[in-house]
Amino acid sequence: MATIKDIANKLGISVSTVSKGLNGASDISEHLRQSVLDTAVEMGYTTKQMRGKDRRKLCIFVENMDYETPEQFGYDIILGFRQVAFRENYDVTVLPVTPSFQSTEKYDTHMLKNGYVGAFMVGFALQDEWMKQFITTNIPTVLFDNYIKKNPYVGYIGTDSFEGIDDAIVHLMELGHRRIALLNGSANSMISEQRRQAYIDSMTAHDLPFSEATMPYGYYVADSAKDHVGNLLSMGISAILCGNDLIASGVITECKLRGYRVPEDISVIGFDDIPLSTKLNPPLTTVRQDRIELGKSGFYTLHSLINHVSISKTMLRPQLILRKSTAKAFS
Amino acid sequence: MATIKDIANKLGISVSTVSKGLNGASDISEHLRQSVLDTAVEMGYTTKQMRGKDRRKLCIFVENMDYETPEQFGYDIILGFRQVAFRENYDVTVLPVTPSFQSTEKYDTHMLKNGYVGAFMVGFALQDEWMKQFITTNIPTVLFDNYIKKNPYVGYIGTDSFEGIDDAIVHLMELGHRRIALLNGSANSMISEQRRQAYIDSMTAHDLPFSEATMPYGYYVADSAKDHVGNLLSMGISAILCGNDLIASGVITECKLRGYRVPEDISVIGFDDIPLSTKLNPPLTTVRQDRIELGKSGFYTLHSLINHVSISKTMLRPQLILRKSTAKAFS
Repeated sequence: MATIKDIANKLGISVSTVSKGLNGASDISEHLRQSVLDTAVEMGYTTKQMRGKDRRKLCIFVENMDYETPEQFGYDIILGFRQVAFRENYDVTVLPVTPSFQSTEKYDTHMLKNGYVGAFMVGFALQDEWMKQFITTNIPTVLFDNYIKKNPYVGYIGTDSFEGIDDAIVHLMELGHRRIALLNGSANSMISEQRRQAYIDSMTAHDLPFSEATMPYGYYVADSAKDHVGNLLSMGISAILCGNDLIASGVITECKLRGYRVPEDISVIGFDDIPLSTKLNPPLTTVRQDRIELGKSGFYTLHSLINHVSISKTMLRPQLILRKSTAKAFS
Repeated sequence: MATIKDIANKLGISVSTVSKGLNGASDISEHLRQSVLDTAVEMGYTTKQMRGKDRRKLCIFVENMDYETPEQFGYDIILGFRQVAFRENYDVTVLPVTPSFQSTEKYDTHMLKNGYVGAFMVGFALQDEWMKQFITTNIPTVLFDNYIKKNPYVGYIGTDSFEGIDDAIVHLMELGHRRIALLNGSANSMISEQRRQAYIDSMTAHDLPFSEATMPYGYYVADSAKDHVGNLLSMGISAILCGNDLIASGVITECKLRGYRVPEDISVIGFDDIPLSTKLNPPLTTVRQDRIELGKSGFYTLHSLINHVSISKTMLRPQLILRKSTAKAFS
C-alpha cells in the first residue's frame, strides 16, 4: 500500500503538507487538499477518518476490460469515478466479474448481500447474463456504454459516437478521401452497433460510398486487423476508421507489412485516445473519449439515481485529436 | 418581497427556526436548513449573507414559455434550477427575451456585458436568432429541449420523448386501441419533431396504421384542438396523444362539443403532467416530465460545462401517469 511519502513524491510537496490535506487542516488551500485526497484515492492510501462508518457502499463491476494500469482503457474511468465518489462520502469496491460468476449469482442478490446502494458497470457485452437482470432491477445502476430501456433505476453514460465518427469522416473528406472504411470492434456490443450506425449516417449524409464490406466487425484488440486489412486494401480503401486505438495500432502494422505507408498511402484514425496513441509510428489521429470525465459523470449519474432523479442518459462530447496518421488522399 | 414570517407559514415552522436556517445555525437539521433555504429561494427572500460578493452569476433566459405561477409549465423548471444553483453559490437572474431583443443584442455580448458565467435557455424555437449563435458560442450554455451539434460549450437537457410516447402507445394498445393519432405542438420546435419521430417509430414497431393525416402539427395551446379534432374523429381515430396537457384539455372540450364521450368513445393522453391535468373532467392520463428535476439537472449540466466537463446531453425518464381519460377501445 502507498505511504504518505509516496503521495508527497507524486505531487512534489512535503510530507507534512500531505498530512494536512489528509487531516482536513485549514491552512492549506481547498484545491491542494483536493489534489492530496484525489492522489490518495488513486494510490489506495486510506486513513481511519477516510474509512468512516457512515460511508455508503458502491461497487464498480468490470467485465472484459483492462483497467490495472494508466495505459489501459478502464483505468481512468474507474479512477475518475472513485475520486468523486470519495468526496461525496461513498466507499467504492472494484470487482472483476466473469460470465460464470453472473450465472452463479443474481445481480440483486449480490448487491443486497454486500450492502451496496448502487453500482457502475463497465465493459459488459449484450449477451452477459446480468444485462437481462438490469431490465427489472430496482437498485440504482449506471452502465458505461450500455442502455436499458424504460427502467427508471438504470442510467447510461457514454461518449457521443455519432459526433465522433462524423468529425473523423469530415476530417478525412477535407483531406480528399472518399473511400473510407470502418473496422469495427466486436459484434456483440451496443457501442459497436452505435458506431456502425454512426458510420452509415455520416457516409450517407456526405454522399460517400459504403457497403457491408466497408464496415466489417472485428474485435477490440490489435490482432483483429490481420483478418481485415488485406481485404480493405484490395477494395481500394484510402482511409480506415477503427473501433479503438488498439485496432488502429494493428492496422498500421498490417499496412506496413503489405508495403503501404501510413499516412502517405493510407490514413488511419483510432477511437479513445489511450496513452498508446502518441507512441505509435506515426502518432495516431484519434477520437478522444475523456475517460476521467466519463468516470466522474458516471458517478454523478449514479448519485442522481440514488437520490431518485431518474437520469436515463448522460452523453459526453468526443474530441478529434489530430496527429500524424492522416494525410491528403493519394490521387 | 416575502418576509421571514411568510417562509415560516409556508413550511409550518416558527419564525425563529426560519432564522436559524437562514443564518446557518448548527442546532437544526441539515434537511430542515435546506428546506428553509429552498423555500427562501422560491419566495424570493434573500439576506445579505445570501447575496455574498463571491457568488458567480448565471442567467436563465425564457422565450415563449409561461413560468410565473406554479400552475405554469416553466415554473418548476426554473425553481429547481435556482434552488440547486443557490446551494452551489451562484446568483441567478431570470430574464424573458423576445425575438426582437435577440436581433438587437448578440448573445455573447449580453452575457459578457452582464458578467454571467453561464446560461440556461428555456422555450427557444428553432428559428430564434440566438439559436444560430449557440452553434459558435464559447460561453457555457444549457438548452432545455434544444440540441446544438458539436459545440462542446453547449449542452442539452430534456425528457426522453421516445420512451414517453411508446409508453403511451403501449398503454393504448393494451386497451385495444389501434387507430391512434398524435396531435402535436408547433412545427418550429425540436421537441415537436422528436415526438413526431417517436410516434412514427413506435407505431411502426407495433405494426399500427398511421399517415401524415394522423400526426398533424398544431400549437402548444388548448385552442389548437379546434382545428384538428373534427378531422381526426371523422377518420375513425379512437385515441389521441397530445403534444402537451393544454392541447389535451382542448381535445377533451372539442370531443364533448361533438357528442363524443371521453374516455368511453375517445381516449386522450397528454404530455407534461402540469397541475391542470388532475383538474380536467375526466382527470388526464399523461406522460409526466418531472420539471423540478429537469431544472436541477439543467443546473448540474451547466455546472459541469463551467468546470470543463463537456456533457452534450442529459436525458430524464418520463413516467406515464394513469388517470381517467383512457379506457377500453369501443368495439
